[in-house]
Amino acid sequence: MKEVRLGLLGLGTVGGGTVNILQTTQTEIQRRLGGKVSVKVEQIAVRDLNRARPVDTTGIDLTTDPLAVVNNPNVDIVVELMGGTTLAKTCLEQAIQNKKHIVTANKALIAEHGNELFKTAEAQGVMIAYESAVAGGIPIIKALREGLAANQIEWLAGIINGTGNYILTEMKKPGADFSQVLKKAQELGYAEADPTFDVEGIDAAHKLTIMASIAFGIELQFDKVYTEGISKVTGDDIQFAQKLGYQIKHLGIAARADNGFSLRVHPTLVKDSVLIANVNGVMNAVMVAGNHVGQTLYYGPGAGAGPTASAVVADIIDVIRALRQPQEDRVPGLGFALDQLTSAPVVAIDDIKSAYYLRFYAKDHAGVLAKVSSIMAQSQISIELLHQEPCADNEDDATIVMITNKVQESTINQAISALESMEEIDGDIMRIRVAGFK
Amino acid sequence: MKEVRLGLLGLGTVGGGTVNILQTTQTEIQRRLGGKVSVKVEQIAVRDLNRARPVDTTGIDLTTDPLAVVNNPNVDIVVELMGGTTLAKTCLEQAIQNKKHIVTANKALIAEHGNELFKTAEAQGVMIAYESAVAGGIPIIKALREGLAANQIEWLAGIINGTGNYILTEMKKPGADFSQVLKKAQELGYAEADPTFDVEGIDAAHKLTIMASIAFGIELQFDKVYTEGISKVTGDDIQFAQKLGYQIKHLGIAARADNGFSLRVHPTLVKDSVLIANVNGVMNAVMVAGNHVGQTLYYGPGAGAGPTASAVVADIIDVIRALRQPQEDRVPGLGFALDQLTSAPVVAIDDIKSAYYLRFYAKDHAGVLAKVSSIMAQSQISIELLHQEPCADNEDDATIVMITNKVQESTINQAISALESMEEIDGDIMRIRVAGFK
Repeated sequence: MKEVRLGLLGLGTVGGGTVNILQTTQTEIQRRLGGKVSVKVEQIAVRDLNRARPVDTTGIDLTTDPLAVVNNPNVDIVVELMGGTTLAKTCLEQAIQNKKHIVTANKALIAEHGNELFKTAEAQGVMIAYESAVAGGIPIIKALREGLAANQIEWLAGIINGTGNYILTEMKKPGADFSQVLKKAQELGYAEADPTFDVEGIDAAHKLTIMASIAFGIELQFDKVYTEGISKVTGDDIQFAQKLGYQIKHLGIAARADNGFSLRVHPTLVKDSVLIANVNGVMNAVMVAGNHVGQTLYYGPGAGAGPTASAVVADIIDVIRALRQPQEDRVPGLGFALDQLTSAPVVAIDDIKSAYYLRFYAKDHAGVLAKVSSIMAQSQISIELLHQEPCADNEDDATIVMITNKVQESTINQAISALESMEEIDGDIMRIRVAGFK
Repeated sequence: MKEVRLGLLGLGTVGGGTVNILQTTQTEIQRRLGGKVSVKVEQIAVRDLNRARPVDTTGIDLTTDPLAVVNNPNVDIVVELMGGTTLAKTCLEQAIQNKKHIVTANKALIAEHGNELFKTAEAQGVMIAYESAVAGGIPIIKALREGLAANQIEWLAGIINGTGNYILTEMKKPGADFSQVLKKAQELGYAEADPTFDVEGIDAAHKLTIMASIAFGIELQFDKVYTEGISKVTGDDIQFAQKLGYQIKHLGIAARADNGFSLRVHPTLVKDSVLIANVNGVMNAVMVAGNHVGQTLYYGPGAGAGPTASAVVADIIDVIRALRQPQEDRVPGLGFALDQLTSAPVVAIDDIKSAYYLRFYAKDHAGVLAKVSSIMAQSQISIELLHQEPCADNEDDATIVMITNKVQESTINQAISALESMEEIDGDIMRIRVAGFK
């Protein structure tokens, strides 16, 4: 029986989950591998040798030096679960130089430095597997790279940050507002003390970058992703959207555009009848549309020890199966052969086309709606849905909510400027994009 | 550049779709394969050489003899899209003897004869790929065999017949009844002239058999699947279920049970808040629960030329990638190594435990409900939800709807017999199982 030896970098939540699966589900994994391979955790790099462990580490060599793991001649596969883009990058570069295969959950590292890492890995003949980097336990990387390989992918749209989806779900409750719900999320451990990374869409942008690359066969382009957070969405917006038959979701969207690709993360109105509108709480889901398959959706828990480690161990099994496969026959790291990646441009957010939800407060005077309509008409924007009601806290004002037809973003922005200069309109206009899919 | 030569059996809807993808999406597929392999359709077995074709067959050898294809020395992979379990079986057995790899969309053949086919294929060193046999374009076989390979699968539940789901969705409309909606489905081409196969759950049982095998590592046991159709579900049942917060779905369910496994297809009440309750029309979806990942769901079109061919071509790409892989390293056909399959028993339907929805008509007399409650109490069944309303067409009668706690099927059947013997109860009692998952 062949032995495959793992070196782990990190023994936190996901590292502990990974060791736990390897220990408790060994029989089931052996039944799949046909008893021909045994998987051994050889060494683990930890922060502090004296800390209490969530798992039994008897017989495993613990070290505080991650470079010792990547340089260990007895390690075949390096499993990187430490996070960050500096030391982790150094370690993986060194591991690749040492011709060790990589399994990593590090979305930031892949999104920001993947282009170089995959090139070096190809030159060294090793694999980098990263299923756990996107949407936790959902095997979305495998679906995009293999399951839908017969398709030209047209677009994908995902709820790929559980914190944000939890907050938007809780905000459906009457009277709930963002800061109050965020506080609750922090108390429950769903949100960090500094929630920027999740709430402003940076984490989602990392995942979107990776999915876009393998969906379209383009380079990883994290710096080109347009990112807009959910902190300005109000409870009122969520209620109004529901009245119009929509839910507000924080989506990462990658789509083919007229002259390239559109990559963006922003709050989005999605029709109730679309399945992803019904994905609530901390759960993740990704819709993928292919030219032959049509629309598909993949749903599951996007974070946590068990789900993330489930993807890590699936990657370990995949890597083991491919060890003796000729390199050119393996599924390429980014789904497409590296020399086949295109560098089609990512279009500026001003150039995308979308329908828009607008919400603003206006004096409840005769003629105001006529003036608003006239400004929209001047920009060739048509109003598809309109809802007006008195403001709850100011009887002289009305809340006006509308959904427009599909127009260019620069056009709606001009119209918004014109509306905001109307003296009858109080404060800023809230603008949220409306999903084009049904 | 290496050439891989395909021999197709069948050029109907799925066969035409497969050739169409290979012709129109060649560039994208080549980008994935790195330009190192070309895929050629060498020969196709058709029913009638003179029939008009949905695709251009210039340069492809057409024959009416499927055995000519499986015996053709210039064919590397046989793609079986003819259906049926007699001639198709003979052809695949011969192809395997000739050491040709198999891609098939034939769920009946795999479910009923897969055990022998996979054994022979292993002995001959060839692969049998069948992603398209279950849930059309959804890569659920890949998710179960590879994406969730780190898990012990606890249960799965799927809407795996689009015809049935279309009918149940249409029956939500007030006044709609089964036979009327079935007629509409037939007119739209969603249902066959003889709808038995879809409506009575036989098609779903084939797919469930396959998913259960690769989820649990058990032999294919189609003859053990309990199957109950949707033809007795009334529009009233659907309306009552909705009033209680449920949707009725025709689910295929495979679950671990006390002393084995439970494999069954039947109408099922599913809570509105569960994502699969929101899957409507002809779409398919499969929920899978793993011990580490928790609940995941896979959704997409379950039939049609494009979606099914998308899965066929993904299989072709997978087989091509694995051609030079050592056989023992390949993903086993049934997910687990053949010598690791267990033959744990499938439990009888009488022995499963479930919550139940009961609906019946009773005389609107004092004391009837007390009598009903007393019968339920005698069987140790508790009533979790109860709804009573006057019958629309008979003011002396009341409709009584209830949902029970989880009890053994034999227990509820005894209670139903006792209820049906009450003189105040008119006609049969409708009994529908209620899903245990949330």
